[in-house]
Amino acid sequence: MRFRGMVSKSFEKYINSLKQKKYRRQYHRFIAEGEKTVQEFLNERFPIEKILALPSWTEKNERWKRFYKVEEVSETQMERISTLVTSSPVLMIGEIPEYKIDKKKTTSQLSLALDGISDPGNLGTIVRIADWFGIEYVFCSEDCADAYNPKTIQASMGSLARVKTVECRLEGLFAEFSETAVFGTFLEGESIFEMGPVQEGFILIGNEAHGISSTLLPHITHRITVPKIGKAESLNAAVAAGIVCALFKR
Amino acid sequence: MRFRGMVSKSFEKYINSLKQKKYRRQYHRFIAEGEKTVQEFLNERFPIEKILALPSWTEKNERWKRFYKVEEVSETQMERISTLVTSSPVLMIGEIPEYKIDKKKTTSQLSLALDGISDPGNLGTIVRIADWFGIEYVFCSEDCADAYNPKTIQASMGSLARVKTVECRLEGLFAEFSETAVFGTFLEGESIFEMGPVQEGFILIGNEAHGISSTLLPHITHRITVPKIGKAESLNAAVAAGIVCALFKR
Repeated sequence: MRFRGMVSKSFEKYINSLKQKKYRRQYHRFIAEGEKTVQEFLNERFPIEKILALPSWTEKNERWKRFYKVEEVSETQMERISTLVTSSPVLMIGEIPEYKIDKKKTTSQLSLALDGISDPGNLGTIVRIADWFGIEYVFCSEDCADAYNPKTIQASMGSLARVKTVECRLEGLFAEFSETAVFGTFLEGESIFEMGPVQEGFILIGNEAHGISSTLLPHITHRITVPKIGKAESLNAAVAAGIVCALFKR
Repeated sequence: MRFRGMVSKSFEKYINSLKQKKYRRQYHRFIAEGEKTVQEFLNERFPIEKILALPSWTEKNERWKRFYKVEEVSETQMERISTLVTSSPVLMIGEIPEYKIDKKKTTSQLSLALDGISDPGNLGTIVRIADWFGIEYVFCSEDCADAYNPKTIQASMGSLARVKTVECRLEGLFAEFSETAVFGTFLEGESIFEMGPVQEGFILIGNEAHGISSTLLPHITHRITVPKIGKAESLNAAVAAGIVCALFKR
């Protein structure tokens, strides 16, 4: 029997530090777990520093050793580094990419702009929606949840391997792209049911409780809404984003 | 200064027991918290056994004492009974209603049918979507999360005060309403973008990981899908429900 669980204590400490935004920023690294999620990053040949896996995973995934550093760990060790209640057989340390804003793409395709989406689960779900509808860029205001928070990664189901999230001041972004339409989602506005498909511009989604910041209002070119038929006060931010994307992309 | 925090230890124990489904079923009671959520139940004159509130809440809400039993509690006591990380100024004990299936309504309007939606947050978000689009009934298979789970209540944002959730065997429901259309959501099927608005029938949403149960397949009259443009493997169940409702109700 081989000796298993060779990751050093100091490396374990490094991995655990990546559960905090501060250290993710410092090291430009994040962790992702779960077979399906990790598989998505592998399929996209995403930059990965190291993969830590149980023997049960490495046995089935020999081929990835050609592309990536794979290290076997014991179940006990995996439980110590996992962020999940039930640890998964594989955990990767990914490199946080620095996506440049592509001027041509940003003016010619649909993007999402998120103003203070504070729940990591909502943010991850929105990234997954972007991936479903082929939206390449998700611009996040600085007070959004961190795109590389383990909960965001989990909710995005691996879509962060494809969708480009860019943290920036949205006021500055909209000023730079002043010729591009900004569709702000509100409780009242033009019905998205009455609009034709939309090919380009920013779909701006506001904070879960407070909506869109007042500093962004001057940049909005179209106030849009998902018409309410019943009585709920509002829709979940990710659901609203999904509905607008579907109607625009139909 | 008045003596505050008069709820007995045994009553506190009773409230805490309602955090478990077993006791919610036994007593036909559930708890809801948060000013906004409780307000929705009050506005609908929902049957409530008792409201427990901090003095800060009761002072502003004198008028509800005409309709409901309101008891003041101390902050310490509220913290002990709350299910939230930061306790809210008000908590209510609601009566779980037993909604009868209305034959005429079920055949003449759109309803949601949920097959094993296991995440309480997803279930609550779907109830909120139903409320937004004026959908009266949400039928839940017996292996769905409990509609009165505190996490479901929180995610539904008070919409459970209006939307009627009915737990039942979906096979039996569809057999009983064999003349009514069942729109099953799949990864492949007829594009909802190509369909006109739909006025009646069941929108069937499957489990987050496994989709729709095989035992329900014979009952499905229309296989529908939200067309995928990008690469995500799937959409979040609540987001898919929201998109289908929007397209059907547009």
